[in-house]
Parts: sequence; C-alpha cells; structure tokens
Amino acid sequence: MREQPSAGPAVTVGIDFGTLSGRAVVVRVADGVQLGEGVHEYRHGVLEDHLPGGAGQALPPDWALQVPQDWRDVLRIAVPQALRAAGVTNRQVIGIATDFTACTVLPSTADGVPLCELPEYAARPHAYPKLWKHHAAQEQADRINALAAERGEPWLARYGGKISSEWEYAKALQLLEEDPDTFRAAARWIEAADWIVWELTGAESRNVCTAGYKGIHQPDLLPGSGRPGAGFLAELHPEFPALTAKLDFPLSPLGGRAGGLGARAAAWTGLAEGTPVAVGNVDAHVTGAAAQALEPGHLLAIMGTSTCHIMNSDRPADVPGMCGVVKDGVVPGLWGYEAGQSGVGDIFAWAVRTALPAAYAAEADERGLTAHQLLTEKAADQPVGGHGLVALDWHSGNRSVLVDHHLSGLLLGLTLDTRPEEIYRALLEATAFGTRTVVEAFERAGVPVIEFTVAGGLLKNAFLLQIYSDVLRRPVNVIGSEQGGALGSAIHAAVAAGAYPDIRAASKAMGRIDRARYLPDPARADTYDLLYAEYRELHDHFGRANGAMHRLRALRNAAAPAGATSTATKESER
Amino acid sequence: MREQPSAGPAVTVGIDFGTLSGRAVVVRVADGVQLGEGVHEYRHGVLEDHLPGGAGQALPPDWALQVPQDWRDVLRIAVPQALRAAGVTNRQVIGIATDFTACTVLPSTADGVPLCELPEYAARPHAYPKLWKHHAAQEQADRINALAAERGEPWLARYGGKISSEWEYAKALQLLEEDPDTFRAAARWIEAADWIVWELTGAESRNVCTAGYKGIHQPDLLPGSGRPGAGFLAELHPEFPALTAKLDFPLSPLGGRAGGLGARAAAWTGLAEGTPVAVGNVDAHVTGAAAQALEPGHLLAIMGTSTCHIMNSDRPADVPGMCGVVKDGVVPGLWGYEAGQSGVGDIFAWAVRTALPAAYAAEADERGLTAHQLLTEKAADQPVGGHGLVALDWHSGNRSVLVDHHLSGLLLGLTLDTRPEEIYRALLEATAFGTRTVVEAFERAGVPVIEFTVAGGLLKNAFLLQIYSDVLRRPVNVIGSEQGGALGSAIHAAVAAGAYPDIRAASKAMGRIDRARYLPDPARADTYDLLYAEYRELHDHFGRANGAMHRLRALRNAAAPAGATSTATKESER
Repeated sequence: MREQPSAGPAVTVGIDFGTLSGRAVVVRVADGVQLGEGVHEYRHGVLEDHLPGGAGQALPPDWALQVPQDWRDVLRIAVPQALRAAGVTNRQVIGIATDFTACTVLPSTADGVPLCELPEYAARPHAYPKLWKHHAAQEQADRINALAAERGEPWLARYGGKISSEWEYAKALQLLEEDPDTFRAAARWIEAADWIVWELTGAESRNVCTAGYKGIHQPDLLPGSGRPGAGFLAELHPEFPALTAKLDFPLSPLGGRAGGLGARAAAWTGLAEGTPVAVGNVDAHVTGAAAQALEPGHLLAIMGTSTCHIMNSDRPADVPGMCGVVKDGVVPGLWGYEAGQSGVGDIFAWAVRTALPAAYAAEADERGLTAHQLLTEKAADQPVGGHGLVALDWHSGNRSVLVDHHLSGLLLGLTLDTRPEEIYRALLEATAFGTRTVVEAFERAGVPVIEFTVAGGLLKNAFLLQIYSDVLRRPVNVIGSEQGGALGSAIHAAVAAGAYPDIRAASKAMGRIDRARYLPDPARADTYDLLYAEYRELHDHFGRANGAMHRLRALRNAAAPAGATSTATKESER
Repeated sequence: MREQPSAGPAVTVGIDFGTLSGRAVVVRVADGVQLGEGVHEYRHGVLEDHLPGGAGQALPPDWALQVPQDWRDVLRIAVPQALRAAGVTNRQVIGIATDFTACTVLPSTADGVPLCELPEYAARPHAYPKLWKHHAAQEQADRINALAAERGEPWLARYGGKISSEWEYAKALQLLEEDPDTFRAAARWIEAADWIVWELTGAESRNVCTAGYKGIHQPDLLPGSGRPGAGFLAELHPEFPALTAKLDFPLSPLGGRAGGLGARAAAWTGLAEGTPVAVGNVDAHVTGAAAQALEPGHLLAIMGTSTCHIMNSDRPADVPGMCGVVKDGVVPGLWGYEAGQSGVGDIFAWAVRTALPAAYAAEADERGLTAHQLLTEKAADQPVGGHGLVALDWHSGNRSVLVDHHLSGLLLGLTLDTRPEEIYRALLEATAFGTRTVVEAFERAGVPVIEFTVAGGLLKNAFLLQIYSDVLRRPVNVIGSEQGGALGSAIHAAVAAGAYPDIRAASKAMGRIDRARYLPDPARADTYDLLYAEYRELHDHFGRANGAMHRLRALRNAAAPAGATSTATKESER
C-alpha cells in the first residue's frame, strides 16, 4: 500500500445510508481498525402517509418515499462527527465511499437536481425518491414479468424468473402511468447510490452493481444498451422506451474512482476538495468486503429483518430463485449472485408481537431481558424435534428460491401443550431451513458453497446461529464488525484511493472475519435432517404444487376494505 | 301424567356427575321448570399425581383416577341443598335419576364395594376408578384395535374402526397386565354410571348406553354375551376372557326403573325410601332429552372443551369416524350415533394461553372482559376470509371422522400482519368446519341431518354460534337450559317414575329448546364455502394422504425425556 505523507495514519471514510439513518465511519487503511463513527437520523424518516409539511399530500397504501436533503444532512452531520470522534485531520483522509439501500431511485434533472426539489414538482408524490420498500408498483412488475415470460426475454432467468416490484423498471412504469408529466420531466432516473456520489463529486456516474441487480443491465445477453429493448418496453407503454435514455450512462466498476470531492461537498463534510470518491454501491454488496467473503463460493448471509445472500463465482449459472446474477456485480472479474429470504428477523418480531403472553413479558421485564432473549432461553434447552413443530418462514413471502410474495407462513404440529417459545424456536429453525434451501439450490446448479459467513443484526443471537450451523452441517463464520456496511464502504474508499490494487486485496487487509465461530453438532444435525425433510416437503407442496396460499390471499384481498391490507412485500429490510 | 297426592307439584331430582363436581337439580314434572339446585365439588378432584393422603403412591403420566366417596358426597350434600333451594318436601319427589362421565370405570366386589375402599387395596392405583380422561391405556387400545382389524371383527366398524384408550376394554387390559391380582379380585368391572345407581338402590343394574358405547356391546353382531368372544380376548392375554363375566349383567333400557331408593341412600339424600331410581346414563346422552333433540336426524352438539355429537336414526349405518353406533343407545327404539371433536374450547383456551399479548390482557382487565370476549370482539368485525387464514382444529387430535389422535393442529396463511384475534377467529372457524365434516359424513352415509342444536358451555359465545350457522348454512337451535345434563336426568327420572310413557314424551313436556336462534347469512355462507374447501383439502392431505403429523409426533416423543410429554388424548372433556 501507498504511504501517506501526513501527521497520522492514512484513513478512509465509509458512509452507509440505511432506511432511517446514515452512518459514517473513519477506518485506518493499514488494518481496517475503526477510529470513529457518526450517525444521523433522517429528519423525515420514511414518507408513508403524506408528503412533508403539515398539509402534505396524502400517499396511497404501500408507498414509501424519502427526502434527498436528509441524505445530504448525513454528509453535513455524521461525517464531521466521525472525523472528530476519530481525532483525525482531513489530510489523513485518502478516500471516501458510500453504500446505499437499493433499489432506491429518483427522477432528477440533467444536472442531478431531484425533481421534488423544484417548486413546481414539490407537491407531486412521484417527484420524490421511491425508497426500496415502496411496494405500490406490484401491478407494473406483474405485467413486466408476464410480458417478459411471454416473449422469452433472455434476461429473465438471471432474476430467478421474476423482477421485483421494488426495482427500477417497475417503479419507472408506475411513474409513467400515474404521472406522465413527471416521467417526461425526469432527464435522469437514478439510483440514490449513484445520486449521492453525484452530490459528492459534482458529476454523474453509474455503478455496475445497481445497474445489474436493479436495472436489468445484462450486456452479455442484451445488445446495444445492455438493457431491455425498445420493442419490449413499447409493449408495456408507448412512451416507456424513453426510459432507456434516462438510465443510460457508462458504467463504472466497483471500487473505482468516480471523481474527486467537489467544493460544495467538501464544505459539508470538512474533507479536502479533490479527495477521491468511490463509485456508488449497495449496502449488502459492500459488506462482502468487510467480512472477507469475496472469494468464489464464500456465501455471505446478511441477517436482519430479512436476509440477503451474496456470493461470488467464477462463472454464471441459472440458479433457481436468484434475485440477480451480475457480472462484476460484487467485485470485478467475478459473477456476483444475490439471493434472499423475505422474512427473518421480522418473523421473530411477529412472534413476539403475537405469541408473547403477559407473564412472559413480565418475566423479561423483571430480569432485564428482551423478549427475544427470554424466548430463546426458554426454547434452547429442548432437544431438537422436541416441540413436534415445523414452520414455513413465508410470513413475508418467499424470495429465494420460489420467488413468490403471495405465499404465507405455516405452523404445523400444534398441540394443546405447544408453548410460545416452541413456536418461536420453530420459526428460528424455519429460517435456517430456508437458508439451507438456498445453499442447496446453488450447489445443485453447479455453484459450490465452500464457506458460510453471517453479518447483520441477528449476529447477537448465538442460539440462532448454532441452529444454522447444525441445520447446514457446516461451520458458521461471523463478520468481525458491527458496522459491515460502513466498513465495507471504507474498504472501497481505500481501493478508489489506490491504497490497494483491488477490492479483494483491500478486504484481506481491512476486513474482519471470525472463522468457524459455530460448529455443527452431528447428533443435532442428524435430527435436523429429519425436520428439514418435513420442511422441504411442505415447501414443495405449498410453494409449487398446491395453490392454497394464493387462494387464501386472494380471498383476504377481496374481503378487506380497500387500503386496509398493509402486508408489505419486503425483499430486504435495512 | 300421573297426579301426585302431595302439597305441591310433583318434582324429580336429576343429578349430573361431572369431572370436578356433581350437581343436583329439582325440576317440576309438569313442565320441566327448575325449582332448585345444589352443587358439590369433589374433595379429591382428579387424582393425577398421587393417591390420596400425604404419602399417597405416585401415579405415572397420563393417569387420572377418582375417589368413590366424592361421588357419595354429592348425594349427601348437593341433593339436600337442591331440595332446600326448591322448597319442596320429599313427598313431592316422584323419581331420581343420574348421569355420569363415561367411560369412568372401576373394579368392585360382587357387592359393589369399590376395591380401593378395601384396606388391602387402598395403596394400589389400579384399585381406584379410572376417570374417562385416564389416557395410560393407549398401548392396550392399539393392540385391541390391531387385533380386531386383523381378525376382521364385525363390531369394529360401529366404532369408526377404532376403540378408544378411554374405554372399558382398554382400561381393563391395562389393569390385567399391570396389576393382575387386582384384576382377579375384581368381581365386577363397572361404569360409575351404573355403580352410583347401585349405591342408590342397593342392587346392581347395567344400562344399554355405556354397555354399547364404552363396552363393545353389539348384540345384533355378537352372539352370546353380545360382547367380543373369548377367542378374541385370549389372543390379547390368556386371562382376558375373564373380563366378560365381570361385565355381564342383564341390560336395562334408558329411562327404565332400576329400583327403589335404598335406606342408606334415603338417609344421605333426605328422599323417601322406595323413591323410583332410573337406570344409569351418560351426561351427553341425557342432554338430548333436555334439548328436545331426540327425533331421528336431530343432531345435538354439546360444545365445551371438546364437542360431543349425539343423534338418533331409525336405522344403523356405517358412518365413517363414529365414536359409536348403539341400538337404543339414547332412547329405546332408535339407533343412537355418537361422534366427536377432540378439541374445541380447549383449543380456544390454548390460543388465549399462547397468543394473547400483554396489551390485550391489560385491555381485557380494564374493561372487565374475559380474554375470550375481547378476542371475539376484535375478530368479529372482519369480513369472512379477511384474515387470509385457515386452521386445522387438531391440537388434541381428531376424533370424527378421522379417528386419529396423533394428528396435530395447523395454521396456514400467516403474514407479518396476522393479529392474535385473527388466529383466534381462524380457530373458531376451524371447529365449525370440523362440525360440518361430521354433518357431511352423516349425510353421505345416508343418515340425513335435519336439525342442529347446540348445548354446553360454549353457548355463551354468540359470535361462535353465528359462525356455525353460516358454515353449516343451517339454522342453529340452542338448548334452553344451562344445566342440560341435570335437566336431562330429571326428565329420565320422570320416565322411570311413570309420569310419562317414554323419554320422547317427557322431553317434549320438560325439555327446553330455542329454535333457529342463529340463521345463516347467505353471503357469509358463500365465502365460508370457499374457506371450507381449503379446510377439506388440508383435512384430506394431512389426515389421510400425508404422514407429516405422525412423523413430527414420533420425533417429538423420541426427543422428549420420558414422561415429559403430557399431551392428553382428550375425547370428551366435561
């Protein structure tokens, strides 16, 4: 690595833009040690009910918007905070990088001004950034998927046979259909991941990751723009082919230098003008670098309210139920695979909301435990299979491998003796079975899974991770950082600054992994094999053969007063 | 009816022996109006852990015994209480009748002395009455059923293909195998229903109802004793043929006069010696008279922690999953059918134990509601199908029509938005679907169901009964008495006393029914048809085609430390 002529060690700044807040960290380039941190909660959070202001326009169900100024405030507040906490001068900072939720996408002018910041568009909901969890474009996604299947579009298999309502094309089609003026006024349709880099450097750039995973960019399959052609788009709406130009821009590789920090952003952050700024990236995708989980066959599970699986391979393959397979999508030179489980921590939270009796709540209070800790403790003693239960973890649908958000959860084996902690444990186990299903899908498709590493908020539940180890019959590694996203960005900043030759080298030096923290117990693994066989039978029955869950959902939707049903199709919660 | 030369109107005394207490009522013979009531809680309740006394012998899991003196105390305490409350003299009392839990069965001497009351047997658990819910004879029941199926025993179809572990033969075989001395010492093996009449009259009698439903008495199919032959019994155990003589006794028709009140029982009760005493009977079976639900095709559902279905028909038929089909089993001259749902109110209680959050409990407290009332209120507004759920009501297994106690409960359609009251409602609905399955089984077997009447503790939940009406698409009648058992006995007493020519005539005069209290709503019924179709598909899949529930139960039983699993196979809770 390059030596820095400064008073202290060389550092980078990594900034992780989450759903409700942004976090900046200052990290030592030589070894990845975090020196300081700053956090800023977005003033507007998520706009779900109405636009900002007392008389802001009401929003329909399933909408989720954000306010760009909240993101700028992270640069203004969290970055200087982190620098102060680290006790470094801006001369030590050799690079800056960001990661963002995705697909979070907005319409802007040709200069990168969000349309919602123009007075004439400020009262139009469609002028605001649509957050990843905006789920009001399902109808558009359904039509895109149906048409793509009908036409045999070659890119569809790269996305497990269905693109999500969360992604760029579905959200754009909703924009066009519901507010064509704003669609036409948008010179650019841009991921927040790229927009924030534009704010930092003063010039547009686009990254291969969001283009591939969220923007249907598959250059080996699609000639020309690398994106779906005008013929396809025109069948959806005569004006939809205009979208391509709003997206089109040369794509930059991950870890690349997007530009130097501009004067305006330098003033906000307190960093020196010209400091190298990395190409935009996605929170889950930078975490691989933080966890040293970049080599082919190293599966990283980022486990929070949902789980995102990221893995590299040296070749493309059609793995059923992938969210996306993108060349150079995580690191240049490899094919990046993304899979996911729609509900994980949010299912455990549902169990606490639903099946935590008052006596349990009181006991947790008295003993200073969270409900999760209490239920885990009560469930942990029981031998595997002792509850007689098996669950399907589809309360929020199934992303991989079934790609079906109209599925739902199931509990089987209930008796009058079934206790809340047993239901809780069965749900923990079900998510482990869901992960095993994904791992087996990779391996059956000829993409071996060699290592398994966990990052994210659920790291704190050791019992859960032991279940994963037993169910997968593999060692489970854990990331050695609580801020996987921000550390991952700081690593990318070091690459963009030229301190390391590439992301893999920087990850080896700056990433953190605790290998084989959990080891499988053969006896428990044997019994889990039996439970997993039951899970798989239910999985295939209700996920493939039998339409009961779809019929029940249709009944529910028909029965509910309009707008009363708020189940979100959460693909990835951050 | 016969005129009584007394100061007041003629009355009868009906005594209902339940699981935890006995209740006596004094009822006017002319019109069935209840004049007084007395209740006595059994001092020993149910013996489940150890025999009486500080150092009483410990009992294994699944045992449930009672103490005969507790039953005598009902005669000594509750009957005089009821007479006092009614303000009648014993000269007004023209008859007395009893009903009992069944199969509750005990070993006695040839004089009717319970073996447990002999000092040399007082420390032997097998010398005590085995309560209906003693579930430790499952192994014996399994062997009896397997052998009967293997030999093609003709009586098996009358019991839905399986006799219960609760019944006379299973409990007797357990007695023989585990304590042969006590088996040999028992001159009589007698239902408590008949034993209590022996206490009242001083002479043994046996009733057709318990003999048929609990004692495999099927005279049209079995020559000689009307019971399984010595060859069959000897294959189970060389000494088992001796059981027949312990059971054998001329059977008396229901509503018949067993004898006159003996001196000892007259002293206990304060009634006149010689007062006519009716033949013994069973709680569920006397309730038909109380509810005026005796005519062919009138189905009575006694809904409590479980549900018992009683219906008469003018002919026998092989209806799948019956608990029993017995000639003269409810009223002389008709075939009495009994079916059942293993879990009903106890499943709702499970939901309250398991899925009642602290905030709900606090709200119920504040508003002075029971948890059931609160959950019902919260669930009642939702349109049919609005929860998107369907459940299988098999937390305690399935009695009719599958006759499989190793099945278990299921919840399907769960989402992150699913609320506790929605689960509660789905369970209410599942029990209604279970009832519809029984009704349809009758009708498919050529036994039409013309009227549907409900008795029992769940009468108080109007929302539940409206669901039943909608799901069955029939009017639902309700019994007009809160004490269906005791009133039913009082009616039988009037018949035994000769005040009416038969039970049907007495029922017409003294019974209470509120016809068509609930009427089906066609629109709701249409949607329930769709949910019922889902229920039936799951019913047939998990109840017949797929063994997942059996495999999970086997796993649970293998995993649990011995004796730690306490799931009872409750056929009828009282």
